[in-house]
Amino acid sequence: MASTAEVLARHVAHRTLPPDDPEPGHDAKLEGYRRSIDNIDAALIHILAERFRITQQVGEHKARNGLPAADPGRERRQIERLRCLASEADLDPEFSEKFIRFVIEEVIRHHERERATGAADS
Amino acid sequence: MASTAEVLARHVAHRTLPPDDPEPGHDAKLEGYRRSIDNIDAALIHILAERFRITQQVGEHKARNGLPAADPGRERRQIERLRCLASEADLDPEFSEKFIRFVIEEVIRHHERERATGAADS
Repeated sequence: MASTAEVLARHVAHRTLPPDDPEPGHDAKLEGYRRSIDNIDAALIHILAERFRITQQVGEHKARNGLPAADPGRERRQIERLRCLASEADLDPEFSEKFIRFVIEEVIRHHERERATGAADS
Repeated sequence: MASTAEVLARHVAHRTLPPDDPEPGHDAKLEGYRRSIDNIDAALIHILAERFRITQQVGEHKARNGLPAADPGRERRQIERLRCLASEADLDPEFSEKFIRFVIEEVIRHHERERATGAADS
């Protein structure tokens, strides 16, 4: 029969992973990083979903009021501001610019679709 | 001399914007949407900065252990998971896939640079 110490050791082994996982091919360190990345990606998707909920309202508002889908002045200010925020957060400003251009292009596509649908309805 | 009521009215006028701004060319509704978008964009930039802090550690870990920069199986699982999360959040799954591919490509570029720098140092 197993001693109390042995039972306890087994119990602890099931609840906590050893620092270096002995299982061949398993990389506990990489696994830990990936869990954090997966959490962050879920947050990004939900924040992007909320951004598109707002830009959809912007699209409807613009279509209703005959405003152009794109606003180059506003885009320049957004890009400049995000480059500054990125620098402060130690994120490559070039990447932040590519990222926001990528998002804005998608939004403009949505706005143009919104306008086309509105015109078809009227 | 202004009456107390007049002073109070002026004070209130300075502190709160009327629902429909009478200033020509000013669109209070659009302005409100844009403030929300700017807050969301600042959040996205900071979350992306944190994601790259983690993937930089992944890159160093991979370079140290001779692991390949890209992992197609992992990428497929990430894309599939984020498409599901996007659908649940009413975000276009196609856009979520384009978005995560865009981020992953940038990460792989970083990993390859990391490896090249590591090789140059050794």
